[in-house]
This record gives sequence, C-alpha cells and structure tokens, in this order.
Amino acid sequence: MIPAGGIGSRLWPLSRADAPKFLHDLTGSGQSLLRDTWDRLVPISGEDRIMVVTGRAHRAAVEKVLPRLTDPNVVLESEPKDSSAAIGLAAAILYKRDPDVIVGSFAADHVIRNERGFREAVNEAVAAADAGYISTIGISPTNPAIGFGYIHCGEQLKVEGAPSALLVDSFVEKPDLATAEGYVASGDYLWNGGMFIARAEVLLAQLGESRPALLEGLTALAEAWDTPRRGAVVDAVWPRLEKIAVDYTVAEPAAKAGRLVVIPGHFDWDDVGDFASIGKLHSGGIGDLAILGENPRVLADSSSGVVVAQSGRLISLIGVSDIVVVDTPDALLVTTLANAQRVKSVVDALKLSGRSDVL
Amino acid sequence: MIPAGGIGSRLWPLSRADAPKFLHDLTGSGQSLLRDTWDRLVPISGEDRIMVVTGRAHRAAVEKVLPRLTDPNVVLESEPKDSSAAIGLAAAILYKRDPDVIVGSFAADHVIRNERGFREAVNEAVAAADAGYISTIGISPTNPAIGFGYIHCGEQLKVEGAPSALLVDSFVEKPDLATAEGYVASGDYLWNGGMFIARAEVLLAQLGESRPALLEGLTALAEAWDTPRRGAVVDAVWPRLEKIAVDYTVAEPAAKAGRLVVIPGHFDWDDVGDFASIGKLHSGGIGDLAILGENPRVLADSSSGVVVAQSGRLISLIGVSDIVVVDTPDALLVTTLANAQRVKSVVDALKLSGRSDVL
Repeated sequence: MIPAGGIGSRLWPLSRADAPKFLHDLTGSGQSLLRDTWDRLVPISGEDRIMVVTGRAHRAAVEKVLPRLTDPNVVLESEPKDSSAAIGLAAAILYKRDPDVIVGSFAADHVIRNERGFREAVNEAVAAADAGYISTIGISPTNPAIGFGYIHCGEQLKVEGAPSALLVDSFVEKPDLATAEGYVASGDYLWNGGMFIARAEVLLAQLGESRPALLEGLTALAEAWDTPRRGAVVDAVWPRLEKIAVDYTVAEPAAKAGRLVVIPGHFDWDDVGDFASIGKLHSGGIGDLAILGENPRVLADSSSGVVVAQSGRLISLIGVSDIVVVDTPDALLVTTLANAQRVKSVVDALKLSGRSDVL
Repeated sequence: MIPAGGIGSRLWPLSRADAPKFLHDLTGSGQSLLRDTWDRLVPISGEDRIMVVTGRAHRAAVEKVLPRLTDPNVVLESEPKDSSAAIGLAAAILYKRDPDVIVGSFAADHVIRNERGFREAVNEAVAAADAGYISTIGISPTNPAIGFGYIHCGEQLKVEGAPSALLVDSFVEKPDLATAEGYVASGDYLWNGGMFIARAEVLLAQLGESRPALLEGLTALAEAWDTPRRGAVVDAVWPRLEKIAVDYTVAEPAAKAGRLVVIPGHFDWDDVGDFASIGKLHSGGIGDLAILGENPRVLADSSSGVVVAQSGRLISLIGVSDIVVVDTPDALLVTTLANAQRVKSVVDALKLSGRSDVL
C-alpha cells in the first residue's frame, strides 16, 4: 500500500494542495515520485496487489500517473485523517478480502536507489511479518543527518528468512548534529524510513490495542467497502475518525511491547523533505547547481544550490551560493539550502494571512 | 536639455530596450526618473525651455510621462549615436533658434535630493557659462564610492555669480577603494555628475575643435531642423555621425584647455547605476529590504537587500541577506548587492546567445 497524502509543505511553492510532493519529479528521473514508488513495488507484489490511499482531489492525477492501478486498489479519503486512518483502512480492507494477507506500507514521496538492496530488505521484513512481528526497514545512515528520525536498534532476533532482523528498542525524533554524530558512531541507530510490513491482522490488532475506537471505525468501513453501502458508511464514519500518525498508534507501542523488528536496509534513501535534499539528490545542473523543471531556461554565473524552473521564464543567477530559487507561475521562493527547513513557516504565514490562493 | 537614451543594462531585467531606466520609478517617488528630472528643471528653466533627446521608439512613453513637453522640444534619434551627437544636436538646434542661449544637459536617470542645493549649483554654473566657461557640477563625495567617476579640482576662479567655481584639473575614471579613499580624504575630488552647462556657442565650438566632421553634421541637421527638409537631412546625416561620448569630445578637451569649471554641489546625488544603488536609495521596505513595484506581494523572513516585484506574483524570501531579486513577467534575476555590477555580463551573455526576447 502507498499512502499518498502529504502535501510536502517544506517544498512550497513547488508542492501545493493541488500538486502535492508525490506528483512531482524531484530526482530528475523523468517521472513522479509516486510512479517511482509504484515501479519499485511492482517486482515485489505485482501490479494488481498495490493499493493507493489518496485524497479525492488527487484521484485523476494519481490514475494518470499510475494507469495500471485497478479500481479496487484505489482508496479515496474524503478528508485527510493522517496515517493511522489511511494505513489502517487499507489494511482493514485487504484483511477483509484475505485474512492471511501480509501488508506493507511505503511512502509515495521518498526516494530509494539501489532497488536490489531495497527488495532484499523487504523480503526479510516479510519473513519477520510472517513470523508475527511488525517489521520496519531502517536505513544504514551515511551521514549524521539532522532531518530524519532515527531507530535505536536492540538485540538480534532469530527469525527464519530474516537473518538481519533486530528488535527495535525505540524511535527517536530528529536529533541535533552532535547527537546525530553519536548515533552514527555507535552503529546502533538507523534512519527511520517510515515503512511498515506486517500481517494485516497483527497491524490491526496493534492499532486496536492503542485506539479501539479507531479500529472499530476502520472495521466498519472495511465491512462496507466492497458493498453498495460504502458511500453511506464513509460519510457516517470517516469524518469522526481520530487524526493521528501511525507512529503513535502502531510503531511506538509495538516497539515497547517487543513486537517491532527492524531490517537494516542497505540502499540510498531520502525522504526529500526539503529543497536541500533535492540539491543532494539531483544531478545534471550547471556545476553545483541542481536544475529541475521542464525545459528550464537558466543562466547561472558562479552560483550553486537548487533552481526549480516551472514558469517558463528566463532565470538568471549571478554569484549566489547555496541558493534555493523556486519559480512557479504564481509564486516565487528565494532562500538558501541552510534555511530550507524554514519553508514551512512561510506556508503557515500564508495560511494565517488568508493567502491560500498560492498554497 | 535631457538626453534620455541609456537602457541601463546593469538594471536588467527591470530596464529593457523597450523600458529603459529613465522610465522607471527607482526611488519610490511614485513617478519615473525622467519625470523627477523634469520636475527638478522646471523651476530653473520653465516648462517650455526643456528639450528631451530620446529614441524614436520611446517617443510615446516620454510624451506620456511628460505631458507638458512641447513638440518643438522633442528631438528624436533614429538610432543611438551616444552623447556627443545627442547633446550636440540639441545645442545646435537651440543655438540656431537663439544664438545667445545657455544650455544645460542633465541626465534623465539620475537621482538628486535637496533640490535647493541643486538649483544653487546650477545658478553658479550658469553664471560661469555666461562668462564663457563650460561648467560642470561635481558632487561633494559622502563616501569613497567606487562606482562613480571623479573630478580632480584645480585652482579657485573668480567669476561673478559663481563664487565657488574651480577650474577642472582632470577627470578620473571609477577608482579602486584605496584610491577613492585618498580622493575623499584629500578634499580635492568631486563625483562627476555628468552635467554640463555652457553657452551653446561655446559648447559647439569645443565640440568642433575635437571633431570638426561631427560639428558639421550637427550644424547641417540644426539648419534643416525647423524646416520641411528635416526628414531628408536626418536620413542623410544622422547615420554617418560619429558615435562618441561627450566626455571625450567636450569635457576632457575643455579641461585640458583650461575652459572647464566645476561647481561643487551640495546635494544628494546618485546615478542609480545598479541594484545596490537602489538598495541605498529606497526606503519603505521590510527592515533592510527595499521593495519596489506596484502592489508588491512580498513575504520576507530575516532577509535584506532589494526586491523588484513586477510580475504580480507572491515573492517569498527566507534568510537571504543582501539579496537582489528582480521579478518580471518573462525574466527573473537573483543576485547579491555585492554582485550588482555584474548584471551587465548577463545582458551581454543573452545578446551573444541570441535571447534578445528578454532584453
């Protein structure tokens, strides 16, 4: 399952309510992150076993990007309810269709390179899921990143088919640099890639343990999903579901209960959280300048950073280092790689000032 | 006379071939630099004694900005021929109309504040011109600017009505910082404001001494100007005129010959040569951020520099210091105040690459 929900506010004005991050090509691959995710999962599950959970407003865009996505595998949210509801509903529907199913949740807007390493990690995660654990995949950190959450690994497990599985000791929020350096040096920490693999039954049970009312709602939805009652039940139930991230309802409680394992993944991964990430990922620009956009017209003189050219205008940079320029038809952002995390504050300010026309 | 010719390449993409610097409001005054110049000269000469020399392409725009400019006072150039031809033709026409006339040439795109100080300097310059000198006005430097040319002052003169007149020893090109500091410390140097005041007869004689063929052409044009033959003579003569700055044909030779005096001017002056100058001139922005444009939509978070908002788009700046952002409908420039002088290199590069659509 691919929850395709987040807008990606730190990538404004590229990412918008009507053009969320997962619909953009942020890597220069020539296609959207969502399609990259789909292509990565097809060899694992097959095309007919990938479910996408997205907002009603994005249905047409998602179906355009994923023409092989079948109708029973599209789950539309009438309003955003965060990841517990999105992942939980998909799991509940799939559980209803097949009580033995093992599900995996993979973000629509992350970047993964070395797909073989990814598949090897998923295979181990599935084996651990088959043994009754909830599995996640942690990425071996290549640098003391401060923009990611970390997983503190515990003891080695012995699970057939998952030789590298470790118990998860705990999750830790984005650290400061000194802490991150300590994490990387210790070898006991992995980046939290936000991927979950489990028997649907186990996942739902864990969710129900934390949030019985939420599970009850999701179960009611799943019961009605493949029937003519779907619309009525969605209207009655979905708006009342608790809005909460799956980290709090599944991952952290499962870790505390010793039911969460992590498979260390040996592949390049990035959540492309901000324009600085894009700068790291993207190549093919002028010198140290990453240039994104269709037919970009950029003239750069001793400049570095990231340019996103979406307006068709000529963009000229002179002597600006580590700059971020995002040029769209109705909004322009100029900041620096070091300030890339602060972009969300602009979005918040625009919301507060009622200028939602550019959000 | 107001020669209104230069495009102002270092102010690209604000200044363009079809929207030259003198047509822009660069100070926040609410009107163009050309109109500011007109308003400054009206109290000195009266509306009917201001002549504007400009390109044919700018006629409509100039007449819109200066609705009181009368037809006999518009001199249109069929192609740019630099300042000797522009100023020389205006002087020759005015000399033909009135052989005793004293003329003054004032750039269309400079900024002057303290107009009383300006008028006092002009009055002295006129008195010196009446005594047969060619007068210029030098501005007492307030800082060791490296973006201006300087006038090296010589001995004090005794001219009735021009008590502060000094002989000009020489003109010096834009200096480096150490040299500029020496100039300012010595007290013997003034900024060259590029203003000339002289009897038309004297100005033309000086020009003829340097460039007899140029004077001959200008005289032929002036003879025909107020007759039905104007068009034919312009077509025949103007294209063949030498293209050369008045500095080389009048100012420097006159200084060498001891015929050039300078009146030290005590007023704020700037040639607004680049976006860094605009930053210094403009007030009314957010903190240290100068914002130009009609109804600018700018959201700035801990940023400083200059923003020119011409496209109507929302412009958001986060954590960029001393930045220059010029946002126009078809071209965007991002640079820094320190690199403002390098903007011309972009214009040159665009010319070379044939992208004149944005010039």
